[in-house]
Amino acid sequence: MAASPLRIAPPERLRQPLAVPQRLLLGPGPSNVPPRILAAGGQQLLGPMHPETLQIMDEIKAGIQYAFQTHNPLTLAISGTGHCAMEAALLNLAEQGDAVLVAVNGIWGERAADIAGRLGANVHKVLKPPGEYFTLWDIEEGLVRHKPLVLFITHGESSTGVLQPLEGLGELCHRHGCLLLVDSVASLGGAPILMDQQEIDILYSGSQKVLSAPPGSAPISFSERAREKMLRRKTKPPSFYLDMGWLANYWGCDGKPRMYHHTAPINSFFSLREGLAMLAELGLESSWERHQANCAYLCKGLQDLGLELFVKEEARLPTITTVKVPEGYDWKEITAFVMNKHAIEIAGGLGPSAGKVLRIGLMGYNSTRANVDRVLRALRDALQHCRQSRL
Amino acid sequence: MAASPLRIAPPERLRQPLAVPQRLLLGPGPSNVPPRILAAGGQQLLGPMHPETLQIMDEIKAGIQYAFQTHNPLTLAISGTGHCAMEAALLNLAEQGDAVLVAVNGIWGERAADIAGRLGANVHKVLKPPGEYFTLWDIEEGLVRHKPLVLFITHGESSTGVLQPLEGLGELCHRHGCLLLVDSVASLGGAPILMDQQEIDILYSGSQKVLSAPPGSAPISFSERAREKMLRRKTKPPSFYLDMGWLANYWGCDGKPRMYHHTAPINSFFSLREGLAMLAELGLESSWERHQANCAYLCKGLQDLGLELFVKEEARLPTITTVKVPEGYDWKEITAFVMNKHAIEIAGGLGPSAGKVLRIGLMGYNSTRANVDRVLRALRDALQHCRQSRL
Repeated sequence: MAASPLRIAPPERLRQPLAVPQRLLLGPGPSNVPPRILAAGGQQLLGPMHPETLQIMDEIKAGIQYAFQTHNPLTLAISGTGHCAMEAALLNLAEQGDAVLVAVNGIWGERAADIAGRLGANVHKVLKPPGEYFTLWDIEEGLVRHKPLVLFITHGESSTGVLQPLEGLGELCHRHGCLLLVDSVASLGGAPILMDQQEIDILYSGSQKVLSAPPGSAPISFSERAREKMLRRKTKPPSFYLDMGWLANYWGCDGKPRMYHHTAPINSFFSLREGLAMLAELGLESSWERHQANCAYLCKGLQDLGLELFVKEEARLPTITTVKVPEGYDWKEITAFVMNKHAIEIAGGLGPSAGKVLRIGLMGYNSTRANVDRVLRALRDALQHCRQSRL
Repeated sequence: MAASPLRIAPPERLRQPLAVPQRLLLGPGPSNVPPRILAAGGQQLLGPMHPETLQIMDEIKAGIQYAFQTHNPLTLAISGTGHCAMEAALLNLAEQGDAVLVAVNGIWGERAADIAGRLGANVHKVLKPPGEYFTLWDIEEGLVRHKPLVLFITHGESSTGVLQPLEGLGELCHRHGCLLLVDSVASLGGAPILMDQQEIDILYSGSQKVLSAPPGSAPISFSERAREKMLRRKTKPPSFYLDMGWLANYWGCDGKPRMYHHTAPINSFFSLREGLAMLAELGLESSWERHQANCAYLCKGLQDLGLELFVKEEARLPTITTVKVPEGYDWKEITAFVMNKHAIEIAGGLGPSAGKVLRIGLMGYNSTRANVDRVLRALRDALQHCRQSRL
């Protein structure tokens, strides 16, 4: 018998059973996944070109068009998480030397600027401190000064809890010959966004927030203006996986016979389809109202605990609430206590808000009054115990 | 009451229940997913930075090190499908102007050449007709002539059914100062590959073939030589999502505290972990033997049906068997008949093999003698009926 060529033994740790504790996920996402969506994702697979797969993709497309309120034919889901959609948006649009204006008031603007820089774009920033939003005036100044191809702005700034007003922004950008690119990963379904009426050129989101599906697919849509810019490119985008020409064909957006492009994450698509179906059944307006009402109820409860909200009322994101870390407390002790004693995830800050805030997410399936009561109880408990531990 | 701002109604087609038929997936992937892996993927989510998530990622890393037979610390799973790992490999290594040598004998070499071209690399090709493999001599000629930074070659050419011999290739590349990048999406676990012993510098695979997990995550590993080249880069890679510096940190490969990078596809990781655990339990050698035996049994059965195999015996991929489309038949009629009457997926060719072959995959969970019997019965039936229909 020949000697074994193996030099590395099967790892001991893989002999243990997979252990996944049950938690209430009230951080900035992912949210908990409702049983109906878990069941969809647990279906047996299909091939990436089976007619049923293509039909489910068509249903996803229609669901995104509803959620985004757009008629754009170029609407589909990226085979990756929200970050991947951010890259898909930027790398299909911007070429070497293109001017890109990025509104930075939290981590997502910073990330978009980083990505645009990697693509060789001339990146310009308009800045606001974390917790604040941009006025039309702030943006117009940047448009006039830098004459960008595209403006990147975050609708729901999940690192700071800010909801960016979008009224008039698309019109303003278009007056200056600029495309409007909006990140709605944390806001879609939780606060009004109307792609066509608000003249947004590129909009993307994630599956794991209000849609309450697992992370792994990301809705995206391009206006005709954005599509034309992509057609005018001089170079191929620096990615085949995210090339919108190929993806448009695979998703049946270009009227041509659909061709194999990549092996898509089929069961992530099943889950996303169910998340979109549940949003369509509830209705966008009911979803917005529900997120608004539960957020207001949470904010009231947090203030009753003596905590101070990080964002002023007019600009609060209904899906993720930020509250200042109270004096005399370590945020890490609070989040660890809430996790360990109450099996609830709440988060600290991220990027520019790190160390300053706690973040509590109420998204989709998790946006309920009962969950607010549960997290408030946990926080009250934490405020008692974590202070005691430092006396 | 304010008028509704909505202009697009919930789509009718999303009101229908999700319909996913049960099929035996004997195409080039995805494979069917065993109940244990479906159950893992159907667990409730965790956050991307929860200790249990990080531990599961550590288990995945150990599982990949076993499956790849490597001690490389820089071993992790990409948050995307196999294609995405191909891009991750190329975009982290190659910079503008770097010489990249691509061995093209099917679609995957073509894709790699396309991607490398998008990255601004100087792409050179060594070519072989579909169905053939490369000798060391073929490769050495290219190495001498083009002095590439990296050679891309496909171990399991799923479009043609060829298994590329790897013996001596790493040593040859290193003698010429070239890195060796190997695509093992379709072969990992089905045919021997020994990353360290074979001196492979970058190796990647997919989750949906022998590992029998859903598509959506992709194992990848980099040797110390490859890591050093990445450290010597003059420019940042043109992707943040796939930046190996960030990913190495998130996966705990760089010895520094792990930081949030992106919201990973958590439940795809659960599934991948189980796929790797099942491979470790079975053992690599048993898995290779099983794929070899079932492939041989299939090949014998196909020849007994009077069909001609596309690849000569010495170079047959044990996971995907290609057979010539028999004269007097339309491959589309055969695959449609097998799908519609027998609920079995088999595939036609892809890229350079399109129209020439039928492809039958036996991977992981699906590599059983019973499945071979089932697909042979279906094919016999198809050969009778599809010929009759054209008389």
